[in-house]
Amino acid sequence: MTIPTTTTTQPPFLRTPEEYKALFDSVDTFLLDCDGVIYHGPVVVPGVKAVLQMMRDAGKKVIFVTNNATKSRAMYKKTFDKLDIPVHESEIFGSAYASAVYMRDVLNFPADKRVYVLGEKGLEDELDAKGIQRTGGTDPEDRVFLPSMDFSVYQPDPSIGAVLCGFDSGINYKKLCKAYSYLRDDPNVHFLLTNQDKTFPTHGTTFVGSGSLSAPLVFALQGKREPTVIGKPNKPMMDAIIAEHHFDPARALMVGDNLATDIAFSQTCGMRSLLVMGGVTHKEEVYGENPSPVVPTFVIESLGDLAVLQKN
Amino acid sequence: MTIPTTTTTQPPFLRTPEEYKALFDSVDTFLLDCDGVIYHGPVVVPGVKAVLQMMRDAGKKVIFVTNNATKSRAMYKKTFDKLDIPVHESEIFGSAYASAVYMRDVLNFPADKRVYVLGEKGLEDELDAKGIQRTGGTDPEDRVFLPSMDFSVYQPDPSIGAVLCGFDSGINYKKLCKAYSYLRDDPNVHFLLTNQDKTFPTHGTTFVGSGSLSAPLVFALQGKREPTVIGKPNKPMMDAIIAEHHFDPARALMVGDNLATDIAFSQTCGMRSLLVMGGVTHKEEVYGENPSPVVPTFVIESLGDLAVLQKN
Repeated sequence: MTIPTTTTTQPPFLRTPEEYKALFDSVDTFLLDCDGVIYHGPVVVPGVKAVLQMMRDAGKKVIFVTNNATKSRAMYKKTFDKLDIPVHESEIFGSAYASAVYMRDVLNFPADKRVYVLGEKGLEDELDAKGIQRTGGTDPEDRVFLPSMDFSVYQPDPSIGAVLCGFDSGINYKKLCKAYSYLRDDPNVHFLLTNQDKTFPTHGTTFVGSGSLSAPLVFALQGKREPTVIGKPNKPMMDAIIAEHHFDPARALMVGDNLATDIAFSQTCGMRSLLVMGGVTHKEEVYGENPSPVVPTFVIESLGDLAVLQKN
Repeated sequence: MTIPTTTTTQPPFLRTPEEYKALFDSVDTFLLDCDGVIYHGPVVVPGVKAVLQMMRDAGKKVIFVTNNATKSRAMYKKTFDKLDIPVHESEIFGSAYASAVYMRDVLNFPADKRVYVLGEKGLEDELDAKGIQRTGGTDPEDRVFLPSMDFSVYQPDPSIGAVLCGFDSGINYKKLCKAYSYLRDDPNVHFLLTNQDKTFPTHGTTFVGSGSLSAPLVFALQGKREPTVIGKPNKPMMDAIIAEHHFDPARALMVGDNLATDIAFSQTCGMRSLLVMGGVTHKEEVYGENPSPVVPTFVIESLGDLAVLQKN
């Protein structure tokens, strides 16, 4: 079997050890989405532990690339530890960490400015680790808000140099108005979103995701300000990864379960992609009568299927 | 002067008593936006009281049409009373009242179903007045929410027949997830927005508006559910008005300060429009090099300018 390096409208569905081996051997760096690829919530995908070990034994570079902005690298490490999957913190790129790297290393965010955060502790931890001053976030002053129509509380704050929106379970009108007024009043204030996922999967269904929580700001500022989105499928995530890891995109493979984020990300960044089933994508979206315009390079039932190579 | 009945790319800017009189005589029903036309916050626009009296003396029908969904008709009456402007409640069409009329008279919303409300007391009052069962809204159970990642609280509720989103200063993740899950799980649940204004003006600037607060649901459900928007510039507002008032659109005039809502509404409904300056629209948007594609029939500095007719 020859592995095509350009995508076709009908990507090959890999099923045999020979096909698995040809792909495995052609990759030096695996970029792996987490939920839907490595685990489903608290359950590790069968075979994946063996496949990760096989990658390490073969000297492959492994990078975990996830849009979830609620967790820091340290928190992710704990999640992997609980699942008994060995990882190094340096291998984990969540959109929280990527946002902090992007702000420090790509934007050169000034040390005397603060970022107004819509987000959780994991995002704050990563900003702190990169020495970026912040306000908002989990501060009860902004987060525990009794409904009010007192608009006098929204005042300019020249110390604010950016607004960064991630998943924030404490979203409220006060936080939205503060963030909006900073962006409305000063075109130099950066408008950043950790990611723009509409929903996120949990409890066997979906709920309101990070991208939906920043939608009020995007909508209110439409035609005036455009946000920079860090997470997949956008290039800033790759810029952040490249700031810390060096690899040849031609010898890299993005593995994911989501066409709109993982597979589109691989296309943005000039990498091949492997779509796994069993996550958020249905087979009909790839092989049906009206397939998605986002086409993976390869498709496989599960990343765990590669474990068969270990036994051969 | 002849009053053109079709819009041109350069609408006439009315300046003389003769022009004012020709327009006034051609109108039987005035539909008037409130903030920016009748008053600016707590200040009545000079001359407008006399103009309203002149309309009533001449036997014109007057209907106040506003997208603000936070106030009931009774609350609006109080606002007008404070400003010493005589109005009847039946002349007031806010998007809160219009939503209740639309649900009862246009949707025939079932008496045994409930609407899940994102909104303020004014919206609840109007739903109550039309006998529509509701939940959510200002109920502290949903409104005072401590940030939490406990998704087990979001349960199906077969009694919910609609989600209605207006301006809600108590917006939070719990309310968004409840509303989202009702719409996600049952295609028969109506998805209604009182209006889709991006921002609203107050304190000499703008803040996050009603349409921006429903943006998380619109974004999360994109491609799956489309909302019905009640308020200007959409037809449901006209359907609600027509359910209670009868008039000839050819002899009606929509007066407003907002191209995207007021003037676009007149076009949707086949009415002529009069744009007033001094509100949210700049002259360049009408007469500049890159004018808005939404063109009013006439432009005037202020509705109060018509008061000159009284003295003649």
